[in-house]
Amino acid sequence: MSFLSQLNWRYATKKFDGREVPEAEVSKILEAIRMAPTSFGLQPFHVTIVKNAELKEKLKGAAYGQEQLTTGSHVLVFSVRSDIDSVLEEYFTLASGGNAEVRTAMKGYEDMAKGSVASHPGADLKAWTAKQAYIALGFGLAAAAELEIDAAPMEGFDTSQAKEILGLKESLDPVVLLVLGFRDASDQIRPKTRFPASELFDTRA
Amino acid sequence: MSFLSQLNWRYATKKFDGREVPEAEVSKILEAIRMAPTSFGLQPFHVTIVKNAELKEKLKGAAYGQEQLTTGSHVLVFSVRSDIDSVLEEYFTLASGGNAEVRTAMKGYEDMAKGSVASHPGADLKAWTAKQAYIALGFGLAAAAELEIDAAPMEGFDTSQAKEILGLKESLDPVVLLVLGFRDASDQIRPKTRFPASELFDTRA
Repeated sequence: MSFLSQLNWRYATKKFDGREVPEAEVSKILEAIRMAPTSFGLQPFHVTIVKNAELKEKLKGAAYGQEQLTTGSHVLVFSVRSDIDSVLEEYFTLASGGNAEVRTAMKGYEDMAKGSVASHPGADLKAWTAKQAYIALGFGLAAAAELEIDAAPMEGFDTSQAKEILGLKESLDPVVLLVLGFRDASDQIRPKTRFPASELFDTRA
Repeated sequence: MSFLSQLNWRYATKKFDGREVPEAEVSKILEAIRMAPTSFGLQPFHVTIVKNAELKEKLKGAAYGQEQLTTGSHVLVFSVRSDIDSVLEEYFTLASGGNAEVRTAMKGYEDMAKGSVASHPGADLKAWTAKQAYIALGFGLAAAAELEIDAAPMEGFDTSQAKEILGLKESLDPVVLLVLGFRDASDQIRPKTRFPASELFDTRA
């Protein structure tokens, strides 16, 4: 199956049938999320994968009772990292293989990354890290569609409650959910509404 | 080709070889962008596709001279829409097929969408619309990878200059670029650095 052939197959599932998505498929979706590009490659986010029934039930409460949370198989909670200095340090340690000489040779790139991060102060940092997480969300959705795993991206939940329910550390702030599962036969699939290409795009030839 | 088999093939291309990407391939990438999910399906963004050499040269000036802008074939400029009331009106007109009765039947959904939009006031509106555009950016990147078209997502440019160069209307604000093309043989491909799954993910079984 190819992603491009699945653009109309996929939809934001409202009700899953409770079946469990095999771990082999979940791993492929997570790998797409892990390999997604981000600004400077920094990946300033973390994903908590919730399979536990009790936690899913609690998350449902934090998501206005939306039943995807409990009928779905895996709930992926994307959180952005506010400890951006640690992100930078971890990234450049990893990229240099912990070799000081290699790291020195990368100094130009590291300075650029730090300058870019510094250009997003305060609340803007969270907006910027969230955008990076959303590229990965897009990759996760594309991977799920290719694998014919249904998915529901969800912004409608209380992020503070979700943080508390999962006991996330202070530096992690949930921003979006991606629920994986299999569509229930009774789920109402509304026809897709998309702006026509003539409105969404214009070309400067 | 499948998207998932291309996760390691793709990379943020720094130098393209100047060859033109066939329009048939560009259309497929645009279709993935158009079909990407967004919050409530609102698609609060617009994409300007720049092929014109003079405009690409000017955009390069607004992007600190980064040569992807002129060696690339198509420059996709993603802008978010600040005229969010128009977005809502256009969306629900389209979704109801302009039928007042159908629209009335959708009132609950429309009220939810309006409530969600209202919950993102001021600067937060731009952060939220940008996140929706980034899901579509992810879909565009996934589509390009599947088609073996190289791509460079770029945040490093002066958004006000880009707006002026393209003569975009007041309600459009550029947020990110996606340059399409073919990698130049001389382009240096740095090894991918990604956090290991054990750090990026944790599971609550």
